[in-house]
Order: sequence, then C-alpha cells, then structure tokens
Amino acid sequence: MTLPLREEKVFKDPVHKYIYVQDRTIWDLINTKEFQRLRRIHQLGTCFLTFHGAEHSRFSHSLGVYEITRKIISQFERNRYDDWPSEERLLCLCASLLHDVGHGPFSHSIEKTFGTHHEDWSCRIVLGDTEVNRVLREVSPTFPQQVAEVIAKTYHKEIVVSLVSSQLDADRMDYLLRDAYFTGVNYGMFDLERILRVIRPFQGHIVLKESGMHAVEDYLMSRYQMYWQVYFHPVTRSAEIVLHKIFQRAKQLHEEGYTFSFMLPPLPSLFRQTLTVQEYHMLDEALMQTALMQWSYERDPVLSDLCSRFLNRCLLKYVMLERIETPLIDQLREMMRSFGIDPEYYLEIDFPSDLSYDVYRPGEHDEKLPILLLDNKDTLTEISRKSEIVRSISGIHMGKYHLYFPEELLDQCRSQSISPALCKLLRLE
Amino acid sequence: MTLPLREEKVFKDPVHKYIYVQDRTIWDLINTKEFQRLRRIHQLGTCFLTFHGAEHSRFSHSLGVYEITRKIISQFERNRYDDWPSEERLLCLCASLLHDVGHGPFSHSIEKTFGTHHEDWSCRIVLGDTEVNRVLREVSPTFPQQVAEVIAKTYHKEIVVSLVSSQLDADRMDYLLRDAYFTGVNYGMFDLERILRVIRPFQGHIVLKESGMHAVEDYLMSRYQMYWQVYFHPVTRSAEIVLHKIFQRAKQLHEEGYTFSFMLPPLPSLFRQTLTVQEYHMLDEALMQTALMQWSYERDPVLSDLCSRFLNRCLLKYVMLERIETPLIDQLREMMRSFGIDPEYYLEIDFPSDLSYDVYRPGEHDEKLPILLLDNKDTLTEISRKSEIVRSISGIHMGKYHLYFPEELLDQCRSQSISPALCKLLRLE
Amino acid sequence: MTLPLREEKVFKDPVHKYIYVQDRTIWDLINTKEFQRLRRIHQLGTCFLTFHGAEHSRFSHSLGVYEITRKIISQFERNRYDDWPSEERLLCLCASLLHDVGHGPFSHSIEKTFGTHHEDWSCRIVLGDTEVNRVLREVSPTFPQQVAEVIAKTYHKEIVVSLVSSQLDADRMDYLLRDAYFTGVNYGMFDLERILRVIRPFQGHIVLKESGMHAVEDYLMSRYQMYWQVYFHPVTRSAEIVLHKIFQRAKQLHEEGYTFSFMLPPLPSLFRQTLTVQEYHMLDEALMQTALMQWSYERDPVLSDLCSRFLNRCLLKYVMLERIETPLIDQLREMMRSFGIDPEYYLEIDFPSDLSYDVYRPGEHDEKLPILLLDNKDTLTEISRKSEIVRSISGIHMGKYHLYFPEELLDQCRSQSISPALCKLLRLE
Amino acid sequence: MTLPLREEKVFKDPVHKYIYVQDRTIWDLINTKEFQRLRRIHQLGTCFLTFHGAEHSRFSHSLGVYEITRKIISQFERNRYDDWPSEERLLCLCASLLHDVGHGPFSHSIEKTFGTHHEDWSCRIVLGDTEVNRVLREVSPTFPQQVAEVIAKTYHKEIVVSLVSSQLDADRMDYLLRDAYFTGVNYGMFDLERILRVIRPFQGHIVLKESGMHAVEDYLMSRYQMYWQVYFHPVTRSAEIVLHKIFQRAKQLHEEGYTFSFMLPPLPSLFRQTLTVQEYHMLDEALMQTALMQWSYERDPVLSDLCSRFLNRCLLKYVMLERIETPLIDQLREMMRSFGIDPEYYLEIDFPSDLSYDVYRPGEHDEKLPILLLDNKDTLTEISRKSEIVRSISGIHMGKYHLYFPEELLDQCRSQSISPALCKLLRLE
Repeated sequence: MTLPLREEKVFKDPVHKYIYVQDRTIWDLINTKEFQRLRRIHQLGTCFLTFHGAEHSRFSHSLGVYEITRKIISQFERNRYDDWPSEERLLCLCASLLHDVGHGPFSHSIEKTFGTHHEDWSCRIVLGDTEVNRVLREVSPTFPQQVAEVIAKTYHKEIVVSLVSSQLDADRMDYLLRDAYFTGVNYGMFDLERILRVIRPFQGHIVLKESGMHAVEDYLMSRYQMYWQVYFHPVTRSAEIVLHKIFQRAKQLHEEGYTFSFMLPPLPSLFRQTLTVQEYHMLDEALMQTALMQWSYERDPVLSDLCSRFLNRCLLKYVMLERIETPLIDQLREMMRSFGIDPEYYLEIDFPSDLSYDVYRPGEHDEKLPILLLDNKDTLTEISRKSEIVRSISGIHMGKYHLYFPEELLDQCRSQSISPALCKLLRLE
Repeated sequence: MTLPLREEKVFKDPVHKYIYVQDRTIWDLINTKEFQRLRRIHQLGTCFLTFHGAEHSRFSHSLGVYEITRKIISQFERNRYDDWPSEERLLCLCASLLHDVGHGPFSHSIEKTFGTHHEDWSCRIVLGDTEVNRVLREVSPTFPQQVAEVIAKTYHKEIVVSLVSSQLDADRMDYLLRDAYFTGVNYGMFDLERILRVIRPFQGHIVLKESGMHAVEDYLMSRYQMYWQVYFHPVTRSAEIVLHKIFQRAKQLHEEGYTFSFMLPPLPSLFRQTLTVQEYHMLDEALMQTALMQWSYERDPVLSDLCSRFLNRCLLKYVMLERIETPLIDQLREMMRSFGIDPEYYLEIDFPSDLSYDVYRPGEHDEKLPILLLDNKDTLTEISRKSEIVRSISGIHMGKYHLYFPEELLDQCRSQSISPALCKLLRLE
Repeated sequence: MTLPLREEKVFKDPVHKYIYVQDRTIWDLINTKEFQRLRRIHQLGTCFLTFHGAEHSRFSHSLGVYEITRKIISQFERNRYDDWPSEERLLCLCASLLHDVGHGPFSHSIEKTFGTHHEDWSCRIVLGDTEVNRVLREVSPTFPQQVAEVIAKTYHKEIVVSLVSSQLDADRMDYLLRDAYFTGVNYGMFDLERILRVIRPFQGHIVLKESGMHAVEDYLMSRYQMYWQVYFHPVTRSAEIVLHKIFQRAKQLHEEGYTFSFMLPPLPSLFRQTLTVQEYHMLDEALMQTALMQWSYERDPVLSDLCSRFLNRCLLKYVMLERIETPLIDQLREMMRSFGIDPEYYLEIDFPSDLSYDVYRPGEHDEKLPILLLDNKDTLTEISRKSEIVRSISGIHMGKYHLYFPEELLDQCRSQSISPALCKLLRLE
Repeated sequence: MTLPLREEKVFKDPVHKYIYVQDRTIWDLINTKEFQRLRRIHQLGTCFLTFHGAEHSRFSHSLGVYEITRKIISQFERNRYDDWPSEERLLCLCASLLHDVGHGPFSHSIEKTFGTHHEDWSCRIVLGDTEVNRVLREVSPTFPQQVAEVIAKTYHKEIVVSLVSSQLDADRMDYLLRDAYFTGVNYGMFDLERILRVIRPFQGHIVLKESGMHAVEDYLMSRYQMYWQVYFHPVTRSAEIVLHKIFQRAKQLHEEGYTFSFMLPPLPSLFRQTLTVQEYHMLDEALMQTALMQWSYERDPVLSDLCSRFLNRCLLKYVMLERIETPLIDQLREMMRSFGIDPEYYLEIDFPSDLSYDVYRPGEHDEKLPILLLDNKDTLTEISRKSEIVRSISGIHMGKYHLYFPEELLDQCRSQSISPALCKLLRLE
C-alpha cells in the first residue's frame, strides 16, 4: 500500500522547472542508496568531452522521466478517460523512475566489453536484496515483480509499457529536452506541452490526436538532429572507442595474470563477470575514473597510454570513409605494427548504425511500439502513413564509416615513405 | 610569443552559446592535463545534493570566465579606448582561464581541514613543472610569473587584476549566470549584454557608464538572491559539514596510526600536508568519491557512517537559532555523549556570514575592488553613493545560526525524558 | 448558469505557452465585440515608441490575467483548501478577464484631458446594453452586477477582489511578465511558478507561505526595475506629453468653434464628454491614429505640428532638474513666446511620482491590499516586517523633475544671446 | 558620403537583444516618416486573429533584417575575406532596412484586389520625393538608384542581392525567429549563431561551409513548420478572405457610384489605382481599421456585415476538401443564392500553394537564389544534393483545398432539406 505525502515535495529542475512528488513510495525510492548512486553516472557517458555542458547525471534524467509520466497520467485523470487503467498509476510512476537504475558507468563501453546489460541490472536491483526492493515491497509483495516486468517490457498491459518505453515515451522526451539543455544544442527542443495536450489512452494503446501531428513531426526531427549532432558525434565516438580499448586491455592483462598496481573491489568481479548486486553498487564513474587515473601510471605502456589519453582528452583522430577496403586496412595494420603501434588497441573502424540507431522506422520489426494517430472518427493510423516528413526521416540512411587512429601515426608516416593509397586513406598530402 | 590560430575554434556552451578561441596559447592551455582535470571538480561542490542540476564542473566555468573577459576586451578594442593597455590582452585571457586551475575537490571542506588554498595552488601550477607552465613559457620566460601575479592580485596594473577579480569581474558574472542556468534557479539571471555595453577602461580602472547603473543594481540583486537561495542553502551547508567531519575524522585516524583498508596515493600526502604539484593533480573528485565509497566499508564506525551519509544523502538535520546559548549547547553535547553519539563529529553550529559572504559592502575594507560609475563629466563615483538600492542591499545582515545534528538523535530523545529547554532547541514537542 | 465546454479550448500564448478555456461563459466573453476591441488598444500606450517590441494589446494581457487567475484557483481546488469559497470561481475568472475591458486608446492622455476613467467604463460595459452583459446575464441576472463590484473593488468578499486587484494580483503578475517579454527588457522576469506554489486562501485573505518570501522579494524588485526602466522612461513620457498636448489643443479648438477638416464620430462626443457605451466602442487606437494622421494636415499649425511629431516620432527633448525654480521657468516661457513658440503646448514639467507610482509602500494608506506572509504557526505578517529588501525598496523615492521642450528651441537659443541661467537650464554651453 | 555616429546607438530588441546602429545614414533613415510609418503595419497581417501575440509590426522586423545583415557583414570584415566587396557595406545595410518600406496595410488582400505591389512601392519611396530619398542622396546622387536595384534584385552584383533576398537571406532569418517569438510557436527557432559562423562570401556568392549543413537543415525545417503551422493557418486564411471580400465589395460599390458615409483620402485614389507616394504614406492599418469600423455601419448590408465579421472575429468557417467537384460547388452556390447569401462574397475555395509557397525547391526555376555549400576543397554544391532531409522537404506537396463559408449557412441548411452530397460537403450529419 502507498500513502500520499502529507505535503507535496518538489525538486527544482532546470528542464521542467519543478518536479512534483506526491507519493510516499516515490519519495522513498528517490532516497534509496541505489537511486542516489545514479548521481555518480553521467547521463551521456563520454559526451562531456565533446560538449562540456553535458555533465548531467542519470539521477536528474530519471527524475525527469518520472515527471513527464506524472504529467501525462495527471492529464488522463483530469479528463477522466475511460480507457486509462487508473489502478496502474503508481506502477507507471515507479517504473519510470527506476527504468535506468541499473545503468553502470560508461555503459556502452562496459557493456560491450563485459557483456553486462543495464536493463537486466535494473531488474536485478528491483528484485534483489536492496533498499529499492524494500520500498517497493511495502506497496505489495508482488509489486517489485510488476515493476521489473514493465522495465523488461513483458508486462501484460501494453499501455503501461508504452508510457515508459515506446517511440514516444517519457524516457525519450526527457532525454531529448535535457540533453539539448545541458549541451546547449537547441536542436533537441520540441513542444512538450503540445504533445502532453494531445496524448490519449485509447483501447489499450497510448495514441495522439491527429491534430498534434506536427508536434510529433517536430519531435522526430529533433530526435534525428540530436542523434547526428550529439549522440553520434565522432569525438564522442572516439572517447567511447578509447574507453572500450582500455577495458579490453585491462581484461586481457587480467586474464594473462598481470598484477595491477591498482586494483580495487569490485573490479576483479567485473573482469570475471561475477558481480553481485552489492558489488555493482560500488561500480560508479568515480571508481572508473579513479581506476583510469591510477592506471595511467601502470607499467603496461598500452594501458597507461590509453588511460592518459582519455583523462587528458588526447583522443584518437578520425577520417571518414565511403566504404571499407579490407586489403588497404590490412596494409595499414601491417604498417602500424612496423611502427610499434598495436592496431588491436589503436585502430578502429566505426559505423554509427551498428549502434542502436534510434531513427523512427515503422516498417522494420522493432521492439519499440510505433506512434499511432487518432482521428475524429476514432481510427488509428501509424504516423508515417499520414506524414510525409516522417516518411522522409524514416527513409534516411546516413551512417558513414569512420576510421580512428592516433595522431602520432601521421607524424611517423610523414617521416617515412608510405604508399599513395595509405596517404590518401589518412588524408596525408 | 603567441600566434593566432589558423582558424578560430569554438566550444558549444549552454550559457554563452559559443566560446571562441582565437589564440594558440589559449587553445594549448585548454588541452593541458591540468586544465582538463577541472572536468573532475564540481563547480558548486556539494550543491548538487540540493539542486540536482548543479553537476557542472569548474572546467565549463573557467571557459566561461575566459569568454566574458574576451568579450570585454574585444569591445575595448573595437572602440579603440586610449585607456586600455592593449598589450595586456593575452595576460588577461590566460589569467581568466587559469584563475581556478588550482581548485581541489570539494574545496571548502578540504581547505578548512588541511589548510590548503586554491589560489596558492593555481599559482603553484602556473609556476611549477607542469604542462600549463610550458605553454605559458612559450609566450615569454616571464609570462608565467605575470599570470601568477594577476591570479594573486599583486600585478602592478589594477586594470588587469580587476577584470579577473573585483566586485564586477568576469568570474562572478560567469558563475551567477552559469549556476542559475544549471540549478534552474532563475534569480541569477541579469543582463550581461547591457553590462558589456557600458563597461570601460578609464584612468587605470575598469568602470561603468552611469547610464548602466540599473543593470548593475540588477546584477547585485541577483548575487544577493543567489547567495541566500543557492550558495548558503542549509542542505548544501549540511553536506559541507558532513564532508568536513569525514576529513577531520580521517585525519585524526591517520594521526593516531590507524590502518585504512583503503588508502591510495596521494591521500597520505594530503594528510601530512606535503602534496607536490604532481600529487595534487591526482586529487580530483573521482578520487575523493571513491575514497568515500571505500571508507563507507571501513571498520571505524564514525568514518564509515559519515561516508554513507554523504553518498546516500542522509545528511544532518538542522534547526535555526536566533542566538547561541552556550550552556544549553554544552548540555546538548553532554546528552549526545550519553547516547553514544560523539558531538565532535555529529554536532555543528553554522553561521553563513562566517563564510566569505559576498555582499557588496563598499564601506568595509575589502580585498575586492569596488564598482565605479563614470558620468558624462568624467567623474567617478562609487556606486552605492548613487544607488539607493545598492545601499539597501549593502546594509542587510541576514545570517542566522543553524544547528546541525543527526535525525536519529531525535528518535533517541523521544524515547527518553529530556529537559524542556533541549526539547525546544531541537523543536521536539 | 454556466456550462463546461465540450472540449477545452486553448490559445497559444508566448508568455504562458497556452491559455486554457474550460467554461462556455469565458469562451463567449472572449468572442464579444467589446472584448475583441481590446486588440485595437496597445497594452503600453505610447511605450512602443521607446521599446519597439511593445506592440502588444490589452487583448493578450487580459487573456493572461485570466490564465493566471485560473491557475491560482485550480491550485486551490487541487489542494481542497477549506478557506477557498469555491462558488466564486467563475466570478473571479470573469472579473479577471474583463477588468480592463473599459480601457480606451492611449488611456493616460485621454483620461487626463477628458476626465474619463477606464474602470468606470469597464463597469459601464459590464452593466450596459452590450454583448458582454448578455453573456454574463446567462449565468444569472445578478451576475453582471457582481462582476462590476469586483472590478470596482466593492465586492463584499476581500478574497475575490484581491485575486484581481492587490499588491500581488494576477493583473500585475501578467503585465510584468508580458511587458518584459515584449519589450525584451528581462528585468521583469520573476518566478511565477514558485509564487503559484506558495499562494493560499486563508481566513478571507490571499496570503503567501513564508517559505516563498524570496520569490516575492524578487517579484517586487522586478516591479521596481520595470517602473524605472520601462514605464517611466523619459521618451515614453515625452510621447505621452505630446499626445496630451494634442488632445488639449483639439479640445480647445473644438470649444472655440474651429471647423476640423477631419472629424468623425465619436470624437465630438468625446470632446463634449457625452460618450455612450456604443460610441465608446468605436473609440479605438485605429481611430485615434487616423485622427492624428488627418490632423497632421489641419491648418491649425500647433495641432498639425504636434500630430506630425507624434506620428513621425519627433518628440520633445528633455533635461533633468533637481528642483523647480519658478522665476527661471517663467523666464523660459517668456523667451519661448518671444520666439513664437507657445509654452502652453511646447513646455512641460513632469514628475514621475505624480503618476500612480506603484512602489510597494505598506505604510501609506493605499487602495491596494498588502502582501501577507503565513508562517508555520498560522500567523500572518505583512511582508515588509519580515523582509529587509522589501523595506529597502519601499523606502526609495526616486523621481526627478524632467523639463520637456522642442529641440528647435535650442537652435533658436543658439542664434540669440540668452541669459547664462537659461543656458545652464537647457544644457547649452 | 556617410559618417559614423559619434556614439553607437542601440535599440532594445526582444529577438536579437540589441540592434546596433553605427552609421548616421542608418540612423537618419530610421527617423524618416516613411520608415516610422511601418510601425502602423502589422508584420503578419491578419495573423493576430489566430495567434494573439502576433501584433508586431514591420518596423521591428525591418530593424531585425538590418541587424542580421550587419552581423553577417561584420563577420566578413572581421575575417577579412578577399571575396567580400567591402565597398558595398552601406548599400547592403540600407537595402536591408528599406526592403519592406513599401508594404501597405494587409498587403496580401490589398495587393490582390488593387494590383499594387509592395516591392514596387519600396522602390517608389526610395526614388521619389521622400525623406528616405533625401537621406540616401546624401551618400551620393546615385545611391537611391543602387538601393532600388538591390530591392528589385536587378543590382549587378549577386552577392549584394543575395544577402537581402535569397533562400537563406537576412529577411527570412529574421521573420522566422521574430514570428516564432511573437506567436509563441517555437517551431520557428533555429540556430542563427551557427549559421552566422559558417556563412561566407565566395566568388561572388554567399555560401555556407559544409560543416554547417545541419544548421541549414534545421532552418529549412523551421521554415516548413512555420508555413504550415502559422502562415497558412486556416483561420488566418479565413481572415484574409474576409478582408479581400471587403475590398472587393467596396471597390465594386465605388465603381457603381455608391456614396459611402465614410470615405477619407486616400481611399478614392486607392480605388482608382492612382495613389501618389504622398497618398500612399497615409495608407496605414490605422486608416484601414478605421474604415472597417465606419463601414460596419454602412447601409450596404454586405459591406457592413463583412466589416463586422472582421472586427469582431466572426470569420468564415471552413472544411477541408481532397479535390474540387465543380458541379457540387455550383449546386452550393445555387443554394446559397436561394437563401439570400451572395456566394460572390460568402464563398471561397482556397488552396495554399496558390500563394507564394516558400518551400525550398531548388529544381524549379525560381527567382530565389539557391543555398550553396562550400566543402574543404572549395567546391560548391547546391544543398539538396548533399542533404537527404532537404530533398525530403523539397519534395513534399501538402496543400489541401479549403472551402470557406459563413456558419449561418449551416443553420439555414439544417432547417431545410438539402442534398446528401451537400450535407457531406459541409460536414452536416
């Protein structure tokens, strides 16, 4: 069971002005140590190395997702929509607040190296021996399980899942606005109030009145721009790559039995992939940045060099490639080795759309629920069938290959005679 | 000697939209590891525990101070003012950029416990064996010394010092705008463009045209509001106090020869107050937060409890006091001891104006240069002689005593019979 | 009786984002011709000649006042405050919307010359044979009378009057924000959301929780700055003076039996002060500006010159005076006459605080209800007893005398030998 | 010849913060009566009836176009680009400021009815016996002619014309930002600073560095949204149609020798299409609104009804049509006549793309210069060849037919038995 707070609490928030808390359960969840840990995880990972304002944490984003969900539900209640299952209010709010609670430090690189997955960890935290679990169990014994199902998108009511996780969910709406605000890149701004006005529960779905179509177009256009201007920015990618190489190297050294001067719990468990929920709690970005700092003094030259690069922002350079010519890349690897630079750790080919490229592609089978428009005659239509602009954005394939390598490679190339093909590849004239 | 960059570089900044870099020296300074380290120091210390948006770093603030200084000088140059010593341009820019380079993690608490001082460290970094020093020496052999003098406010030209450090300097102007932006508290907004339009070099001073007086009033009013709404917020103060107690306890344990399970370089040097510039570089907030996390598992119960409190935001409660009654406080201390709570670490009386309360008080002898207005007849007048509103703000003494203690103390009090005077003090009915 | 609208209607508003209409009565009132007429009356009279963005109308301000009142009441209802007389909701909303419906073109100058009063006209429109009256009567036969009483501040419940008209009413809150937005002068911005959060009905008054005191200080400071930066700007005053002289001259000519080439209904009734409600409806700024344009071709040289000055923004110059020396002013008048310039129409001494200077002065007997703070113990205190900053602003007397005259006077003075005292007065060297 | 002002002047502007005037010629132009007249012409014609904030004038827009041009040129000068013809600075500034000086009241409707053209009038004002002409002639005897050529797009240097009039000119950039600001519709916001940073003079063209392509995409997307959300809004179109019908009726009556109760100069000249420059000056929106008010009391029922509709915002209703079925429309006209409603004045079919639909369509032969991107190898490419998003927007054909008619028609239809086809057409069930 849950109780209303005796007096509404607020958090001052630069994006939504205020975040309103009316339920004791929400207040208690925010005060758990697992939720407070999100203050020590950057919302945008390494992006602050490209956009210095992007230093905000998953803590403030999680509050923002909660607040947008609260606003949507409060609109549903104000309008007394029959199709809204009002008994699911608290479940939606809790799942919104907690959907990112399992995020680790620099998630992309860590997950890629060690095979963890943040959604699994969110569920483990919700279900495990944690403060979060204790607060949720006060609502009802099965409540933690329900929250975990919403996060895992297996909950039996689509309408609940889609508030937290769909093509137009509270998560995306908050991060676009928030990331735009903190980076200073105003492409991410869209008319949230307009969308909140036209969103409706309808026959088990979350839909939008057709009159709000232009607001949705604008939102999808913002998303498109933010992906290409911010999230896939090649400097951010470069930092991700360096970080991934660091973890790869450390893991390799660990497997080879190398003795680290600096090794703190729970890093060994991370390397062995045996982390418990309690150990996972200690794994924040403060720890990872401390490890990078200490390892920048390790005697292994690759590990120490890569860590210094990350800390001091001497990242890898890049050139754009139209396509990959494997023999040429092999030749480049060979040359790097001849210079004493290990291509395993100093060369990477990156293709943004390998990532979870979040364009709206209604045609493709996607885990994300599509955006549905509701017209005056109560007919539902998937938005791209009505909007030319959405069709246009959906059809765009933009990714280009990027080749990353250390700037020093160019100095070495300049002092040697290298093949014209390699010169051209590396943009050396 | 310095060179212009072949092409102007920009940083996207949410406060100033863009930050423009035109000089190679500035570009190189930003890329030093000492300057990059500022990314790992919060601009507002523990304030993010009160205003969750306040997660911005001294890195972005330092760029902002540089940018405002650049804008002021560029206005001076555009108007070709005779009283502007144009040869000092690069010195002003470098000092603006570097004035905070010596800030450590959670400066207030650390400085209070270990007697370090961030301005001294800024000078040591500028003058020591650092990348910053190497970049500055490329300008001229004496340039690092000049920069250090501006930071230490001993440089022989007041006009240079006052751009970086006065009652209306680039530092204050940036932090008010930036802290307002990131906290979401809009009291800190003032009309920067208007001030930039009326600022002038005049007979060795930085002055403002009298026609801009209202903009300055507005700036001082913003400053007043930010101090009382944000900087002296009792929750932020509570976090500062907990942090100070942690360092005090750790220092005490270290002096007693206690063996820490977690102890990394350069913490021992910090305790012994023998930090070198190289060791200071490692002392960032990632390290301090990692120490707090690891120490939350130490066997010393006071240290471990205080660290958990900070990390999980279970800070100390507070009550406001009109005045301090020493016998009553002694009685409270006694009672706490009887409950097994050490008042040395769990009780604190705080008075904001003990801090460097930054109200504009032209009458008092202050290290800060006052604000001068220039009228049509080229007469200079200190602003409070012209503005009633400034006189009003200057005269306000607002500080109240706050008594901080753990919430658990109240539970224990409730289960015992305690004196009515103590009940009243702790707001127990 | 009133009905809710089948579907909420919205107006896009740049200040409040959206204005929400939920009642048929409000919707119908907005669509009356008397309310639509407000589109043809500038909110800030002649201020657009100083701040070119200030071209907004009383129509948008009136919607804004309504919206703030609606937000306040909706907060009261959400919190189910016992002290809120919920049956007064519609009355408050209608009075908010209509409080300015009687404003005429360039109210200050017209009212000064012809002795009309906009509040009286608001009541006449509410009570007369108008579309507004017909809509109100559909609520109940006595409803128009109630609305008129609220506008006239004679309604028997203070709480209703004070929402629309007090030191912190919806009217002032909207105009500060709106005038700041449209002029671009950001001094008028204050934290409306914070004030909306702490406002309460309490024992027949509208009060503010003490915790919101700083937000009120900020609001009063904004008001102070807007008055001196915008509302009393000497160029705006100059335009008011020219306009007043035009009406004075036209009235004089009319009384002398002069035949105007241009004279349209209802101008003769205005001159004779016999306007009916139907005639008043035609009296908008389009008509007045057309009269000014046509009169700029009248054969009376004074009328034609003054009209050209207003239309083409060749206003009167001004100098600031510490005090009025009557003999010197008489001497100036004499000299003007000798130049053939009639001081009756070309000289004016202005003192801003002659105007309804809207500083917050709780001590003085004022028609405006004061601002009351409510503390934790349910005690009410007038704000200036708690806030030093409010005491400071309240005590400031800033007005200076301004002497207005045509620039051409200076040219004539320069070609003659005039007394040193007059030279000094007019700032001629 | 022109002189710099002794001291830079500024106008406070809500969109650009400040507008800076440095040249005496610009200052004098702003103070001419022809330029001041623009204060009495709405920037967005009848749009204020849809978006009540849209009450801004062509005066503020014209200042904004000047300011953006000034910023672009000042960037060119700061970077000392060889390809910039610096001798054309003043010409560009004057043409920017004056390009709209010939706009009449409610231009679209007036131009449609009376065949005037605002660009022709701008040239007539620049070249005729006007204050504007006198100020320009002080620069040089041929200067007015040059300004007129730039406005008419016949000036021999494309680079000069394209600053004022191209697909990415100062005019469009200002109006998108300004109209977005005043309507409150934030779709019009784009990153002006970014565009100002990447714009370049290059071999006689104004081009953009390819790195700024995303900012241009965003600008074009904003334009697309503003057209469909604001400029082509059916309520605004409805007001335009009513206005057009009013002028059509008045012209018809005039031709039939009808005696108007209200008829002022220069309306007869407008009807006869013999306006002189001096008469055109009197033709502002104050006059037109006064005419509408007076004509609302004319004895011709059609004229009087249409004028009341416009003033009191009882516009025509509309339904959307996929296509035009001529026989059905004829049937509707017949029915209207049988009800005594003249379809000539009360029925209209509107198709937005009949208007100057300002989508970016590089393929079509257009008077507007296209947007060119400059890559690292100094190659120019038209933007739609590089940007998929621009190609998408360019290809969209969105216009739908709208049928406008009075709401009263529906009441009459309801009381009669009308054909099912007409019922369906008018959405009567």
